[in-house]
Amino acid sequence: MARVVEDESRIYSTAARAERYFHDVEPIRAVQWSPGGDAVRIIDQRRLPGEVVERDLRSLHDGCDAIYTLAVRGAPAIGVAAAMNLVTSLQDWAGDDRHAFDVTLESHARALAAVRPTAVNLAWAIARMMARAEATSGPPTQVLGVLHVEATAILNEDRAMCDAIGANGVEFVPDGTRVLTHCNAGALATAGIGTALAPVYAAHAAGRRVHVVAGETRPLLQGSRLTAWELGRAGIPVRLITDGMAASLMQSGRVDLVLVGADRIAANGDVANKIGTYSIAVAAHHHGIPFVVCAPWSTVDPQTATGGAIAIEMRDGSEVRTIAGLTVSPDGTDVWNPAFDITPSALVTAIVTDRGVHRAPFVFV
Amino acid sequence: MARVVEDESRIYSTAARAERYFHDVEPIRAVQWSPGGDAVRIIDQRRLPGEVVERDLRSLHDGCDAIYTLAVRGAPAIGVAAAMNLVTSLQDWAGDDRHAFDVTLESHARALAAVRPTAVNLAWAIARMMARAEATSGPPTQVLGVLHVEATAILNEDRAMCDAIGANGVEFVPDGTRVLTHCNAGALATAGIGTALAPVYAAHAAGRRVHVVAGETRPLLQGSRLTAWELGRAGIPVRLITDGMAASLMQSGRVDLVLVGADRIAANGDVANKIGTYSIAVAAHHHGIPFVVCAPWSTVDPQTATGGAIAIEMRDGSEVRTIAGLTVSPDGTDVWNPAFDITPSALVTAIVTDRGVHRAPFVFV
Repeated sequence: MARVVEDESRIYSTAARAERYFHDVEPIRAVQWSPGGDAVRIIDQRRLPGEVVERDLRSLHDGCDAIYTLAVRGAPAIGVAAAMNLVTSLQDWAGDDRHAFDVTLESHARALAAVRPTAVNLAWAIARMMARAEATSGPPTQVLGVLHVEATAILNEDRAMCDAIGANGVEFVPDGTRVLTHCNAGALATAGIGTALAPVYAAHAAGRRVHVVAGETRPLLQGSRLTAWELGRAGIPVRLITDGMAASLMQSGRVDLVLVGADRIAANGDVANKIGTYSIAVAAHHHGIPFVVCAPWSTVDPQTATGGAIAIEMRDGSEVRTIAGLTVSPDGTDVWNPAFDITPSALVTAIVTDRGVHRAPFVFV
Repeated sequence: MARVVEDESRIYSTAARAERYFHDVEPIRAVQWSPGGDAVRIIDQRRLPGEVVERDLRSLHDGCDAIYTLAVRGAPAIGVAAAMNLVTSLQDWAGDDRHAFDVTLESHARALAAVRPTAVNLAWAIARMMARAEATSGPPTQVLGVLHVEATAILNEDRAMCDAIGANGVEFVPDGTRVLTHCNAGALATAGIGTALAPVYAAHAAGRRVHVVAGETRPLLQGSRLTAWELGRAGIPVRLITDGMAASLMQSGRVDLVLVGADRIAANGDVANKIGTYSIAVAAHHHGIPFVVCAPWSTVDPQTATGGAIAIEMRDGSEVRTIAGLTVSPDGTDVWNPAFDITPSALVTAIVTDRGVHRAPFVFV
């Protein structure tokens, strides 16, 4: 019966002894340029928490595979990595004539944008890169130079976006806040300090005690594998639960605030996020607990009127039938495995973006 | 992207082709006497769905270990197995004088009743056995004979109880019903055809089409390992989801009815059941979907006024930190791991027992 920690004061005292994230711990770099600038260096998130392995993506296959297999994941990080991979994957075509190069560029852009359909900022980042390419005259080498600069700008803007979300959202995290989060919308999901976790990191850096409960987030366990790992590394107290425990935890009075990320936000404030988010939103509503979504402005999609219009990626049933390769259900069991769900805006207390704190009625146009 | 089955008509047609459970399939015997009657024969549920392994429990250690490690599980099956194990574990003391025997009997009864604190019918079955022993005069061999008869009566009553719940609950399962269940309250959780799943088996036997969605039920995956297995074996269409998907499934209009079991029911109708049940109850309430609890009358505890008075078993964090021995979170991660949660009676549409269908206001005295 070890390690069932019921005494939150003990957790806080551990936190009080821990040094501050920003002072002591090298920031996590989930996505960055390789030293030579010719590859996208990612932390391979499939290997966490057992091993911290970096991987360099260069070819189009490298990039699409890493995004599809969730070696790189999190809507912001996917957008940044895809923009950077668009450049690195075109290096072998630098000697083509401009027309042939443009044809390849177009095909790479389409391939990258199509790997995961729900996250709007993947398409947004690729579209932004394409607009720069189209506005650039001259040979492919010149286009590649401009695209490298643009991808670097997207990378740096992503880091600044995270800091802005942290600054805007920290008002929701006073001293002693017990935060429930889902999936991983932290440093591992962005190029910076995360989205949902940015206010947590900001509160921690400001000397506030903050305690995070991470839902493990089946089927792919981003909460237990990633959120528990990155918060523990930063010295922020974290406790793990299974997804089915969230409502009971709220009922027991142990949750002050829910913070989650978003993969797409419709014009009316409906939020697409990792499957399991909607269940938490319903429970938070039932218990009168604030439910706050933190996401980059690029996640807002004014072209999508409501959540009902958001395409939900359906993933392979093997993710549910097995866990890390281990079969946990009878062979051939039918599975329903949507990657995301839709939380209607009526259940959302606030949406924090890098542009500020948005409250109902949400009108993103 | 294989096996993401969206076409429910296909599932139903599979069901229509399947033969009926009661005609074709040998009933599952989760708990029965060994052929010689000197041991409790169980299906070791830790080995499912990979292997169907039977195990004979004789000593007190055998019985306590099997109950604690969930080799035998489900409140009714635990009560039956404990009553039977009380007899088998005392066989080596048959030659003692009556006073010494009674001391051993008392200690075995206490040990068995204490293994799992939440399920009231474990204590109920043991208390019933002790009352019979106390009312019996004569030497230990005579007491053992009476106890064997009483344990057999408890076993047979459990089977009859399941059939009665099926008959009483089948009104909730008209043709075409899409049922969501949680954990395993089926044949594997009882000596008969189950509690929550008894109305499903009854509807299926009556020729009605019924489709079950099983929540996988982290941390111990009784839904994916056991419910998916036993329904599949019986030819009843079953689909698997992770626990976080239940609310989204309801939102999408794919659930007509929730059926769950109970480990204890308070006098006011509050229900203790597997962790994750409360989250489903909140979601069902939010979506206006009937939430029906099926449990033996012995699960009702008039001595417990409300759910707040029910002791919740806290289990080891390793059940969350690991899955089937595989570590899925950083070493030493803090965990909150209650085995059960409490669903307040206000969220319960009906409670079906072997005595009938009970509706609000629930007054069990």
